[in-house]
Amino acid sequence: MTTRIPVVENILSANDRIADRNRVLLDEKGVYSINIMASPGAGKTSFILKTLEALKGRLKLGVIEGDLATSIDAEKAMAAGLPAVQINTGGGCHLDAVMLADALPALPLSDLDLVLVENVGNLVCPANFQIGTHLNVLIASIPEGDDKPYKYPGMYRGVQVLIINKTDLMPYVTFNMNYFIKGVEALNPDVTIFPVSCKSGEGMDAWAYWITEKVRAGKQG
Amino acid sequence: MTTRIPVVENILSANDRIADRNRVLLDEKGVYSINIMASPGAGKTSFILKTLEALKGRLKLGVIEGDLATSIDAEKAMAAGLPAVQINTGGGCHLDAVMLADALPALPLSDLDLVLVENVGNLVCPANFQIGTHLNVLIASIPEGDDKPYKYPGMYRGVQVLIINKTDLMPYVTFNMNYFIKGVEALNPDVTIFPVSCKSGEGMDAWAYWITEKVRAGKQG
Repeated sequence: MTTRIPVVENILSANDRIADRNRVLLDEKGVYSINIMASPGAGKTSFILKTLEALKGRLKLGVIEGDLATSIDAEKAMAAGLPAVQINTGGGCHLDAVMLADALPALPLSDLDLVLVENVGNLVCPANFQIGTHLNVLIASIPEGDDKPYKYPGMYRGVQVLIINKTDLMPYVTFNMNYFIKGVEALNPDVTIFPVSCKSGEGMDAWAYWITEKVRAGKQG
Repeated sequence: MTTRIPVVENILSANDRIADRNRVLLDEKGVYSINIMASPGAGKTSFILKTLEALKGRLKLGVIEGDLATSIDAEKAMAAGLPAVQINTGGGCHLDAVMLADALPALPLSDLDLVLVENVGNLVCPANFQIGTHLNVLIASIPEGDDKPYKYPGMYRGVQVLIINKTDLMPYVTFNMNYFIKGVEALNPDVTIFPVSCKSGEGMDAWAYWITEKVRAGKQG
C-alpha cells in the first residue's frame, strides 16, 4: 500500500516557488550564489573563510550563515571583513527558501559577485529543500570516513560540487579514497570534485579558479 | 504572536506513549538500552564494536542500527558476532519509538543484558524524539571542532553521557578542550564525560566499567 500525503507536496512546491523568486532576485542583481552543505564540523565556515582569502581582489563576496541558535559563524565572517547575515532556524534542521528570501535583502547585493550560503550542519534534511541558489556544494571531510556516500545518498546525489576537506588528516585516519569515490560516482557521475585542506590551504587555488570562471560565465549568461 | 500547532504535539505524545511501551518491554526482559547519537562519522559504529570488545565475557549485547538506506553497520555488527537488526528510515532524519518497537522483537531480548541503538547520524532531529531507551549517549569527535555544544544545544542538553571520540587526533587539529567543556557544562552540568579513542582503545575501559555498573544497577532496580 502506498499512501500519498498531498500536504507535504504542497509545502514543498510553495518552498520551490519562493526559491525561484530568490533566484530571479539574485540574477537581477548579477549575483551568483552557492548553497554549502555538510555534516557538523566538516569545515563549512573554514572553507568560506579560505575561499574569501583565495578570491581576494577577484570577486566581492557576501555570506549568509544558517545555524540553530548562535551567531558564531556570522561573527567570524564579519571579523574577516565579509558582509554577513545570520539566519537562526530556532532548532530547525535545514534552511528553506523563505529564510533565504528574508536574509537576502540584508546584504548589499548590488555590490556583490558571489553569495555563499552556509546551511545547517546536517547530511539529511538540507538535501530536500532547494533555497534558490545556483549551485549546491557538499563538503565531505576525511575524518568522517569513506562510507558517507553510501549512507547519505540523497545528499551526495543532489550536489554539483563535492569538496573533500581535511586532506591533511589522511595520514592519521583510515580512509579508502577509492571506496569513497566509487560511492560518489555511483550516485552522481557528473559531480566536480575538489580535494582541499582548509588548514594548509592546499587545493584552494583550483577551487578558486573554477568558481571564478563559473561566476563570470553566470554574469555573461 | 505565538502560534500553537496542536497536530505536532499529538504526534509527539503518540511517539512518547510508544516509547514508554518500549521501555516496559525492555524492563520486563531485564535489558538495559542506550540511544547512541552523533553527527555523521563521529564514530558510532566503531564505538559499538569497541564496547563489544571491552564488555566481552561481562555482558551480552545486541545492536539496532538506524540508517537512511544501507545495512553496512548491521553487517559490521553481525560480522563481530553481535545479534543485530537494521532499521532503514527511508530517508528519515531520525529514529522514532515506532521504529524501535518494530525492531525490538527481532532481537533475542531474553538472552541479552544491553541493547545499543545507533541513531541516524544527525545532531538536530534525533534530539527531539525519545525512543524508549534508558540512556541517551552523544558521541562528539575531536575533528568536528570545539564549537559544537554552542551550535547544537538541543542535542548536548538532552543526553546523560558524552563520549569524546578520536582523542588520538588531538595533535593534528585545532581543538580547545576548555572552550568545548565550558559549552557542554553550561548546557548540561550533570553529564558524564568519557574521552576515548576508538582507534587506540584508550579510555574504553572506564566507559566499560561505568556502563557495566549501570546495567547491573538496572537489573537490581
